[in-house]
Amino acid sequence: MNYISIQDIDDINAWIEAAKAIKSNPLGDVELGKHKTLGLLFFNSSLRTRLSTQKAALNLGMNPIVMNVSGDAWGIEFGDGTVMNGNTAEHIKEAAAVVSQYCDIIAVRAFPTLTDKAKDESEQVLNAFAKYASVPIVNMESATGHPLQGLTDALTISEYTTKPRPKVVLSWAPHVKALPHAVGNSFVEAMQKMDVEFVIANPEGYNLNPEITKDTPIYHNQAEAFIGADFVYTKNWSSYEDYGQIKNTDPNWMITNEKLGHAKFMHCLPVRRNVVVEDAVLDSDASLVIQQANNRTYAAQLVLKKILEDLQ
Amino acid sequence: MNYISIQDIDDINAWIEAAKAIKSNPLGDVELGKHKTLGLLFFNSSLRTRLSTQKAALNLGMNPIVMNVSGDAWGIEFGDGTVMNGNTAEHIKEAAAVVSQYCDIIAVRAFPTLTDKAKDESEQVLNAFAKYASVPIVNMESATGHPLQGLTDALTISEYTTKPRPKVVLSWAPHVKALPHAVGNSFVEAMQKMDVEFVIANPEGYNLNPEITKDTPIYHNQAEAFIGADFVYTKNWSSYEDYGQIKNTDPNWMITNEKLGHAKFMHCLPVRRNVVVEDAVLDSDASLVIQQANNRTYAAQLVLKKILEDLQ
Amino acid sequence: MNYISIQDIDDINAWIEAAKAIKSNPLGDVELGKHKTLGLLFFNSSLRTRLSTQKAALNLGMNPIVMNVSGDAWGIEFGDGTVMNGNTAEHIKEAAAVVSQYCDIIAVRAFPTLTDKAKDESEQVLNAFAKYASVPIVNMESATGHPLQGLTDALTISEYTTKPRPKVVLSWAPHVKALPHAVGNSFVEAMQKMDVEFVIANPEGYNLNPEITKDTPIYHNQAEAFIGADFVYTKNWSSYEDYGQIKNTDPNWMITNEKLGHAKFMHCLPVRRNVVVEDAVLDSDASLVIQQANNRTYAAQLVLKKILEDLQ
Repeated sequence: MNYISIQDIDDINAWIEAAKAIKSNPLGDVELGKHKTLGLLFFNSSLRTRLSTQKAALNLGMNPIVMNVSGDAWGIEFGDGTVMNGNTAEHIKEAAAVVSQYCDIIAVRAFPTLTDKAKDESEQVLNAFAKYASVPIVNMESATGHPLQGLTDALTISEYTTKPRPKVVLSWAPHVKALPHAVGNSFVEAMQKMDVEFVIANPEGYNLNPEITKDTPIYHNQAEAFIGADFVYTKNWSSYEDYGQIKNTDPNWMITNEKLGHAKFMHCLPVRRNVVVEDAVLDSDASLVIQQANNRTYAAQLVLKKILEDLQ
Repeated sequence: MNYISIQDIDDINAWIEAAKAIKSNPLGDVELGKHKTLGLLFFNSSLRTRLSTQKAALNLGMNPIVMNVSGDAWGIEFGDGTVMNGNTAEHIKEAAAVVSQYCDIIAVRAFPTLTDKAKDESEQVLNAFAKYASVPIVNMESATGHPLQGLTDALTISEYTTKPRPKVVLSWAPHVKALPHAVGNSFVEAMQKMDVEFVIANPEGYNLNPEITKDTPIYHNQAEAFIGADFVYTKNWSSYEDYGQIKNTDPNWMITNEKLGHAKFMHCLPVRRNVVVEDAVLDSDASLVIQQANNRTYAAQLVLKKILEDLQ
Repeated sequence: MNYISIQDIDDINAWIEAAKAIKSNPLGDVELGKHKTLGLLFFNSSLRTRLSTQKAALNLGMNPIVMNVSGDAWGIEFGDGTVMNGNTAEHIKEAAAVVSQYCDIIAVRAFPTLTDKAKDESEQVLNAFAKYASVPIVNMESATGHPLQGLTDALTISEYTTKPRPKVVLSWAPHVKALPHAVGNSFVEAMQKMDVEFVIANPEGYNLNPEITKDTPIYHNQAEAFIGADFVYTKNWSSYEDYGQIKNTDPNWMITNEKLGHAKFMHCLPVRRNVVVEDAVLDSDASLVIQQANNRTYAAQLVLKKILEDLQ
């Protein structure tokens, strides 16, 4: 069993209940992962994912081994048939098979190029691990998805909703750098599986991949989208259509307390204050960002638990 | 309970006795930290602190998680109200609160700028963690203090003294780089709490912060200060008055066997041989530097033990 | 007991049998290393060694502590009597003695310069640790040897041979970068201890150190060497005679299925595909490279086990 995308969740409500059970008793399965090793391979920077996934592994009694692939090792080659006389020193066929000899589960973080759409959508790194590793793979944020975050967010909404079918808005917000679509994509997929009223707000030219958004309503007027919102999940992403470009930095899309109304504010973090969202929101009780970060542990722990049970 | 400065030690003699008890039975509390996580966050390089603090955590049964903040994650913002459209990607308010979700204790290393005295004295990084984290904070060397080292040094002097009230000299020595005042400051504060005759020797223009040295005698004549010394603790620091500047590189301040007489030599390490101290000293039985390094484990273990007991 | 070179193996057949016993029951000694710490110090990049040595330590119940010396700490000085007013901040005399305070065993990786033959052959880093550390040292690849790899390779040949005295060929292959002699040297030394027919194939000007190859036959004609081969172990190295130089990049030395015949293919990895060996070999059942990588764990575990038993 791999955990590659939100689509690997068969029944999101059952998973949410299972995550809540873990959260109420984090050490309940501390024998399950005994003498099992989780390899955490980072091709990119990480804070929450790095710490929460290790914490989840420790709660299951596993031994985490962390590796910064670029810094600790060398360039990895992904091309088929390449004559490797350039900068890459090891092919993913060997690297994935080799790491599988030492780790019972491999978790991988690998961001997109944001310049080569086809390459990013092929999920070259993650899929190569899934193909060539002989052990289960967990996605710690790939080119197009961040399913540990998406599961976390579903859990958090389930915990904090005060009504059976809350209205959830995913709102784009401005940023100074070109950012990936991974968090947005996985949040969309998670919300499509939940019993919520879900809409997206983003400027024109910023629609996410239509194969992911499907028939989810997309508003280009933020105020209109926010009417009656119970949760506003905010995230910047670069243009998908004009791939990886920054087309808009309009500060009017920044989230403010005034815009939020009674809605709860969510963000995956890290967040740039007073660019994506004003201080007043993050410093208020409307913000759930720290609670989300806490839930990262239990989402990861659920995924690892399911894989460990599947290995038995 | 935080461990931020030597001033957090209520009774240094009691702490020294407790550290000696740990040293005589390092695994005596191996159940105390079971399933507890120590996050070690390094904004700067470290060898002794990195290894000894992990070792201390392991002796208490804790799980250490190490993170090089700059290399593994991204730039952290400390300013209030900043519009974060520059190089920092996450505010300390979030970072500290988030790490608190995964770690039961957070240990932080963050060196001074040595260019901005006010910023350094505000202990921006450490104090921000103390303010925004929801778990105890341990100082692994901050802008102005290194209290794990200071406690180590007090323990070492207590172990090696042959008289009730030894004479201890803190002597400046030359160096090629501008170094922080942290080790010097914490050693001064530790000695002021102990029953020793304590004096400082440094060139003119190199007095440490007078709010720390208080009424400790300061000699600008090294030979005079060394008369009757039982312990000579050596450390370079840059000028405090002319903040962060190198005003003096006089090799006559280097420590030699001849100067030491019967005194023991101490240094926190790393030490530049034949610049700070001649080979003959370090290679002789007068040197306690390796014993000090060993005591780093027990000082850290005492601090972690006290915090763990306080958490219960 | 240190493990510095293949020459530290007293009886290679007994060691191979012991490694096989560990492989059949990897957790059989999980209490042996309880509360013992293995320090892994990397002066250079590592993937297999980094992961497999940690895995071996975990199988023995040890706590591994990993440190990238250059990135996590600072430059280490190795010269005797140096006035340390340059780029190095700590002398190996202190560094090795200090790390010995925190770790029960120290494993070190330090590559050669490939520019200074005398310095490389003095094994400056490894020998300094062996001299100044007060705990056992394990070589995780040094300037002139990689004995954990050599032991792994001996184990793998023993597992896969179908005859009492197989023919083993060590063949040089082309590469774009100047590579060390360490793997080649340790493989030669391991084969000289085993009951195999062992020959070396390399271009003229590429003979390894004659003090290591001794009376092992060296062919400059690859095809001739390969006649009747059961195992072809391939590795690039730079010239030893014209030290560290690339004298030959002849693609005719690349390993192909046609050249291999019925022989098994071995390589320590990482390997550059279609430069050192063609895809067809690595993707065939003739390749043992993944099995070799797996055996890295058991070779390391045997070495650590022997050292732990010796410490008792």
